[in-house]
Amino acid sequence: MRAARFYGAGDVRVEDIPEPTPKEGEVLIDVKWGGICGSDLHEYILGPLVIPTKERPHALTGDSMPITLGHEFCGRLSKVPTGAKGAGGEELKEGMPVMVDPRLHCRACFSCHEGATNVCSKWGFLGLHSADRGGFAEKVAVQARMCYPLPESVDLKDAALIEPLAVGRRALTVSGVTDWSKLTVLVVGGGPVGLAVLFNLRAAGARKVFLSEPTARRQDQCRQLADQVFNPMQMKVPDECRKLTDEQGVDVVFDCAGITPGMHDGMAALKPKGVYVNVAGWEGPLTLPMGLVMIKEITLKMTLAYDDKDFGDTVKDYIAGR
Amino acid sequence: MRAARFYGAGDVRVEDIPEPTPKEGEVLIDVKWGGICGSDLHEYILGPLVIPTKERPHALTGDSMPITLGHEFCGRLSKVPTGAKGAGGEELKEGMPVMVDPRLHCRACFSCHEGATNVCSKWGFLGLHSADRGGFAEKVAVQARMCYPLPESVDLKDAALIEPLAVGRRALTVSGVTDWSKLTVLVVGGGPVGLAVLFNLRAAGARKVFLSEPTARRQDQCRQLADQVFNPMQMKVPDECRKLTDEQGVDVVFDCAGITPGMHDGMAALKPKGVYVNVAGWEGPLTLPMGLVMIKEITLKMTLAYDDKDFGDTVKDYIAGR
Repeated sequence: MRAARFYGAGDVRVEDIPEPTPKEGEVLIDVKWGGICGSDLHEYILGPLVIPTKERPHALTGDSMPITLGHEFCGRLSKVPTGAKGAGGEELKEGMPVMVDPRLHCRACFSCHEGATNVCSKWGFLGLHSADRGGFAEKVAVQARMCYPLPESVDLKDAALIEPLAVGRRALTVSGVTDWSKLTVLVVGGGPVGLAVLFNLRAAGARKVFLSEPTARRQDQCRQLADQVFNPMQMKVPDECRKLTDEQGVDVVFDCAGITPGMHDGMAALKPKGVYVNVAGWEGPLTLPMGLVMIKEITLKMTLAYDDKDFGDTVKDYIAGR
Repeated sequence: MRAARFYGAGDVRVEDIPEPTPKEGEVLIDVKWGGICGSDLHEYILGPLVIPTKERPHALTGDSMPITLGHEFCGRLSKVPTGAKGAGGEELKEGMPVMVDPRLHCRACFSCHEGATNVCSKWGFLGLHSADRGGFAEKVAVQARMCYPLPESVDLKDAALIEPLAVGRRALTVSGVTDWSKLTVLVVGGGPVGLAVLFNLRAAGARKVFLSEPTARRQDQCRQLADQVFNPMQMKVPDECRKLTDEQGVDVVFDCAGITPGMHDGMAALKPKGVYVNVAGWEGPLTLPMGLVMIKEITLKMTLAYDDKDFGDTVKDYIAGR
């Protein structure tokens, strides 16, 4: 079968490799659609970053480069061992459309025991940390419990985006906010993760949502979801935010850009005691503007992927919203 | 009267200036003891930082350099207008020993209305933002409501340290932790603020408290309060912390040092989803080790001074503990 495999920065090869043979507990999937994640791009430009090398193979898979890419993918089950059950205990059947939670975790460390599987000490992803199990291939073998069955009514082309939507959902979870109905939010960056956060904020009922994004195309893609779209090259985003919040500033900022000017805008736009959630993968260093963050007693939260609940809830809501 | 006044970096002059004349609502205090704050040192080395200049006078006082220094001070009331009441509504009397909450705030902005007076948009301090009202002077005039009466049993020489103790208390408040009895904590830096945090952690009942501090003298000063004292020049602090926490890492770190190697140690010592509270004033930039903080979904919290409750509670507990 054909698979897109990562050999190093700027070196992804579409190769013929053997079909994976399902191990115990695994099902085989015909991959239908896969998304390219920002972290795939970071690996392509600067990698290997988290992708394992011969010198540091992955703690769970033992694998190293070349790695089959693709961790945002869905497909149809093509081989299912008798009695195999999906993530929610559903009986899996051949032909069934499924979305895959691609995360690897050890199920043994302290974090896993606490249910915090996204911060497992040996965390990994199919599509980043496995030699022959990745979504950018015709077939992929995954543990049955990683599969979330989808109804036939769902378009699989869109469904692959459940994965980045779960990243957005996680960002809201991490913020610590439970009631969004009175809050004003600034999202910095209108790329796929910015969009995922916007969708989640609207689903959660955020009162007002602003977006800062310099490119016209992404501004257009986000306009339906944001109350205001600011072009940071043409206006001072913190000033605009203050104008629209009785000079208070926004309650929460989601950084979906990972660049210094955007971060400075976000910190300046926050109200005192505001919460700044970093969802972005930063290529450069994140150096805090200490004057701003100290004087406002800002809380900075980091978010990594998603846990079982984030993913499961996203699938459920995604299906309900179709 | 004599007063120590700030004219710029490396330029503090002890001068004769007129005694301050109490304005409406103010009492006059004979200053007995004052502490030198880390921020005083930062101003002396790198200032003017927050000290106002002619080009940017302070928003509330309208004052600029020269500034009478000293914001950690106590003394005895020497002039009290009829009916003047202290912070808790106590009747103030001449001769009474008092500790002063030196903060200035506008009482009009959104933060002040919410009781978050420490992040007032016009925040300031006597001793940093007032030309003739500072604790490094023989006399100081302050609003009656800034005064916390002390019993005669309290030694005023120690009582000036209520101010940095309130800074330590604030750091605990900001962490969001309400029950310390099961938590293990690392304090980075055993200077006065590190000590203040250690005292508060012990008072709050923290299960285990570790300290990282390179100088022998400060190690000795902290040994009574910390379960373990690590010398970061001689051992790997994160490894030591993991050894003592079943390989999990500490729950909370308080950064009372404000230097990059200490911060890296602290981030590495934290367990997944741990909380990092920065209490330090940083002279250099704070650049986050993104790999570490992302992978562990760390929360970083900034703390600034203290609010009415932090200060009042510290005075109360300080008196109770004598």
